[in-house]
Amino acid sequence: MKKNIRIGVIGCGTVGSCFIKHFNQKKRLFKNRTGIDFSLVKVSDRNAGKKKLFPSLYTPVIEEITSGKDVDIVVELIGGVEPAYTFIKNAIRSGKSVVTANKALLSEKSVELFALAEKHNVHLGFEASVASAIPIIKSLRESLVGNNISRLMAILNGTTNYILTQMSIHGGNFSQALEKAQKSGYAEADPTLDIEGLDTAHKLSILSALAFNKPVSWRKIFSEGIKKVDTLDIKFAGDFGYRVKLLAIAKRQGSKVELRVHPTFLPQNHMLSGVEDVYNAVYIEGDMSGKSLMYGEGAGGNAAASGAIGDVIDIGKKLAAGNNMRLPLTYENKKLSVVPIKDISTRYYFRFTVPDKPGVLAKITDVLGRNGISIASVIQKEESKDFAVPVVILTHTAKEKDVQKSLREIGRLSIVKFPTVLIRVEE
Amino acid sequence: MKKNIRIGVIGCGTVGSCFIKHFNQKKRLFKNRTGIDFSLVKVSDRNAGKKKLFPSLYTPVIEEITSGKDVDIVVELIGGVEPAYTFIKNAIRSGKSVVTANKALLSEKSVELFALAEKHNVHLGFEASVASAIPIIKSLRESLVGNNISRLMAILNGTTNYILTQMSIHGGNFSQALEKAQKSGYAEADPTLDIEGLDTAHKLSILSALAFNKPVSWRKIFSEGIKKVDTLDIKFAGDFGYRVKLLAIAKRQGSKVELRVHPTFLPQNHMLSGVEDVYNAVYIEGDMSGKSLMYGEGAGGNAAASGAIGDVIDIGKKLAAGNNMRLPLTYENKKLSVVPIKDISTRYYFRFTVPDKPGVLAKITDVLGRNGISIASVIQKEESKDFAVPVVILTHTAKEKDVQKSLREIGRLSIVKFPTVLIRVEE
Repeated sequence: MKKNIRIGVIGCGTVGSCFIKHFNQKKRLFKNRTGIDFSLVKVSDRNAGKKKLFPSLYTPVIEEITSGKDVDIVVELIGGVEPAYTFIKNAIRSGKSVVTANKALLSEKSVELFALAEKHNVHLGFEASVASAIPIIKSLRESLVGNNISRLMAILNGTTNYILTQMSIHGGNFSQALEKAQKSGYAEADPTLDIEGLDTAHKLSILSALAFNKPVSWRKIFSEGIKKVDTLDIKFAGDFGYRVKLLAIAKRQGSKVELRVHPTFLPQNHMLSGVEDVYNAVYIEGDMSGKSLMYGEGAGGNAAASGAIGDVIDIGKKLAAGNNMRLPLTYENKKLSVVPIKDISTRYYFRFTVPDKPGVLAKITDVLGRNGISIASVIQKEESKDFAVPVVILTHTAKEKDVQKSLREIGRLSIVKFPTVLIRVEE
Repeated sequence: MKKNIRIGVIGCGTVGSCFIKHFNQKKRLFKNRTGIDFSLVKVSDRNAGKKKLFPSLYTPVIEEITSGKDVDIVVELIGGVEPAYTFIKNAIRSGKSVVTANKALLSEKSVELFALAEKHNVHLGFEASVASAIPIIKSLRESLVGNNISRLMAILNGTTNYILTQMSIHGGNFSQALEKAQKSGYAEADPTLDIEGLDTAHKLSILSALAFNKPVSWRKIFSEGIKKVDTLDIKFAGDFGYRVKLLAIAKRQGSKVELRVHPTFLPQNHMLSGVEDVYNAVYIEGDMSGKSLMYGEGAGGNAAASGAIGDVIDIGKKLAAGNNMRLPLTYENKKLSVVPIKDISTRYYFRFTVPDKPGVLAKITDVLGRNGISIASVIQKEESKDFAVPVVILTHTAKEKDVQKSLREIGRLSIVKFPTVLIRVEE
């Protein structure tokens, strides 16, 4: 049995630095917990200035890590599709196992990467790619493996959850909340990937492959961002007993699965409604496990390093034992198809902005009624001093395509001067 | 590579029946998710009437499972120390891997069983022994392996959590809530192990071995049950902004660890405070992972079977790959010692029952003050019609030994006619 496992790290940013620091400090802990000696042998970063931090480990030559003889596991912590994809392919082809936190890459290339890993008899760990320290990847692949999962709903993006929490607590608008998030280091200078729900779609693509044995590119996942959510909507949500959260939603129905990312009305007493600030959480309904929730830090260097170190040690144990136990991404369920967004049914919240005149509500409800959409509640507040007032409606379960048709018809009514806000509801 | 893994099940009660049902229904799912054929080859139960349920699988002869040539993994689902201990030892000595949900056995014999499993090169899975479907065992052993864990707090007993939830929501007393739990099937006819906190201590003994590399018999864990918790205490907890929960608490402080089970005042906004009814949850603070919570169904046949099937498939994959990767219970940290309860410090809630006369509060606070116990809040309600009234006090952090000394002194005061209630506080 091999008792010494050697690690090379590519990328010394926030996550890389935390990984290296803890890895070096805890070699004895790892030995105590596994019986194996883990050692960090090489570190690289495109910024040669990092050499100062790790003078004895730093190399500017990536190939010394991806194909060096003295490396067993390559830890890729640079993010983004390229050059990470090239580095990882090179490492796998050189017989290295790989640990990565790269959700953008995996949501695009997981099938190719796992096929390559299988071909070269190496392991590929990616726990830190979704929800950092929350062990959701391992739980889906291993602990819950006996379950048919009917529904998964998750808060997977700290930036947007922070913004929605700020708007909910302090009542500021989206721009103010975004600015605060940027000042606190919780949002990038260019927050597009987060705000538009694309980062969440990346992660949902990874989780749904594991939960439903169906790899789906994130590009095929319906995604709506949180820009359209106004403080008014959050207030009305409260009036109806709901919170607004950006959710990744996956629902299995027989041979079909719904996959979507959008702002969502969620009952105030739902477990996910209490998940605030930059925290992440994943809620799962399994046919044996019942309802469960995993909650924790979904971002930050230490949390991501916690997930990556878990992977390194897992793979190290397998290598030490003779490298016979690989875990494929999934054995694909080819019969399963993804439901297009137009074919879903759910409950809806609409906010219309209309003149405060008699007959306006009747015109709107007439269109909804003709399209088979049944209304559960209406709030029309008296604010007659303004030119236009909000009218909000919560529907019973309706078909997305009927809803879209209705909103197009309502949009053509002369009374509607501003775009209508639509937010889907989950119970 | 071995592609067929054969399972024998001992015990066809609630958990066993669910295990067998799902196992038989999902053979194709397991094959799809692992590439391995799992088959159930034998089932036994001391009740020969079970033969009717599984005519082709049932055997009255336990040895056909524990030492039969056609069994790879023995699943023990009978519970209790004996005869389960004997069956498992026989299975291990015959070279079988074992999966068990038996917390009573593991909290007593885990060190011996893991040594025996190591000697015979077999695997021992026990995910379902604590919190059933919540993957807390795997998370502590694998996902969080890179963390130094500073604190673990958990609700691990559904019966007591159900009773406390009932008392909290409906205001009934302990006996009424227990009766309701028994009627609903959430409490045993003899609920002693649950009510007295011993079942929780069993489970804390298992978790702390993994979190702190320190196997400690449940007999050495300080345990207090919930019988002493009165509806009044739950009401006062609410007045102070707390909930009352029966918690398993483990705290690491350098080379020492506190392990205790008792009713606890927990802030209303703590994640564990929202865990109601028979649900379980484990809250963990790690130096990398930060604060995390795992929540789910901690009891019931399906939830326990979910954990056991996860173990069976994990072990099956290892056997299929050549059986080289065993996981020891832990490499013991012999330097770590357990803090005796008298040496802990925390905040305390006291409820004194005293005559409603001038000077009574002064006598009590005088004793506390002389023992160095500082008071944070006092509630003394005016209910002068009664012979005796409650006086409740919430302290700042104090030493347990000072607290016990004070309560003994106060107990000797002529004004104190009823036992004083003490409940420890966690933040």
